[in-house]
Amino acid sequence: MDKKQVSLAVIRRLPRYHRYLEELLSNDINKISSKELSERMGLTASQIRQDFNCFGGFGQQGYGYNVELLYNEISEILGISDIKRAVLVGVGNLGRALANNPDFFRHGLRLVGAFDVNPDIVGKSVGGCPVMHIDAIEPFLERNQADLAILAVPPSVVMAVADRLFELGVRGFWNFSNVDIDIPGATFENVHLADSLMTLHYRKRNNEN
Amino acid sequence: MDKKQVSLAVIRRLPRYHRYLEELLSNDINKISSKELSERMGLTASQIRQDFNCFGGFGQQGYGYNVELLYNEISEILGISDIKRAVLVGVGNLGRALANNPDFFRHGLRLVGAFDVNPDIVGKSVGGCPVMHIDAIEPFLERNQADLAILAVPPSVVMAVADRLFELGVRGFWNFSNVDIDIPGATFENVHLADSLMTLHYRKRNNEN
Repeated sequence: MDKKQVSLAVIRRLPRYHRYLEELLSNDINKISSKELSERMGLTASQIRQDFNCFGGFGQQGYGYNVELLYNEISEILGISDIKRAVLVGVGNLGRALANNPDFFRHGLRLVGAFDVNPDIVGKSVGGCPVMHIDAIEPFLERNQADLAILAVPPSVVMAVADRLFELGVRGFWNFSNVDIDIPGATFENVHLADSLMTLHYRKRNNEN
Repeated sequence: MDKKQVSLAVIRRLPRYHRYLEELLSNDINKISSKELSERMGLTASQIRQDFNCFGGFGQQGYGYNVELLYNEISEILGISDIKRAVLVGVGNLGRALANNPDFFRHGLRLVGAFDVNPDIVGKSVGGCPVMHIDAIEPFLERNQADLAILAVPPSVVMAVADRLFELGVRGFWNFSNVDIDIPGATFENVHLADSLMTLHYRKRNNEN
């Protein structure tokens, strides 16, 4: 089975399955049908079965899923326990919040370096790392490997920063600058928090009708 | 047509369509086929047609979509231009980053009040609002209406904060505390940034294989 053919929509649901299964486990629920799981998650049972079939099925239909098995397999597919070494570029409020989010560390993120241009910030520390000037990133990445870059810089500079990091060998970008960027040969996750705001607004308005 | 029957998966794609269409408009592209749109967005053309059919279709199949019309209709469905009056609870790094995100203001968010318990933070200002002690929230919400609460508090207190705001009439919650919460009768958007991290990791690993 070629995992590359799994659609992005399915992949994006896997972390949600992982969270729901974690909650089930913490409540000592060891068996769940696709119907029950679908009701908890607001998906259809057939959607869940289709999703799991992309990865080989995870269990016997009609008998329910083994929660722990499913949890472990999804953890492995997502690489939860893989260490992801990350540099943070942009140590404003958002950068600091990201660097200190304990939830990321639970999911394997390790901050190895932090960079900014602001002289008031350079020399301070964030998430256990000293903040260096961005011009120190070339020698830093010659000595240290980074799997990912977290981009928390203004939209006007994000493309230049990404290009610079790509030249230095970084191939994964978690981009919080509110603009979509892409470089062929690298993987970008462009986060748009406003999408979530609009979804909330839509759902609230339509729940209230 | 009953919009309540539109699935959450479709609703979550609408902001993405909105962004792509905005980009097309800014590049003076006025007509696009579902095939072209699907290639840009990494969805199937049939998925796009199905999505748009949930809202009445938006145009003639085979002739392409009118980008401006589609953009305006999706803007209206999402209520982009509706003002969403929000209180922020929790003025740490993340709360400050959220309060100052210009992208949210473009999408109608207006911060009307900010609350924290930390005496070093109370009395300062964030996003143009003075930060008040959380115990001032009852009188504040008696005088001021809030459509939404942005929760940027630690996971250990988020449920208590949400309950307190619900009692005061708040019915929409944008929750950044990394835990799923729910109150019947209210709408919750529980943001899990780690989901996006795991998706990035998965995609990067599988692109590289």
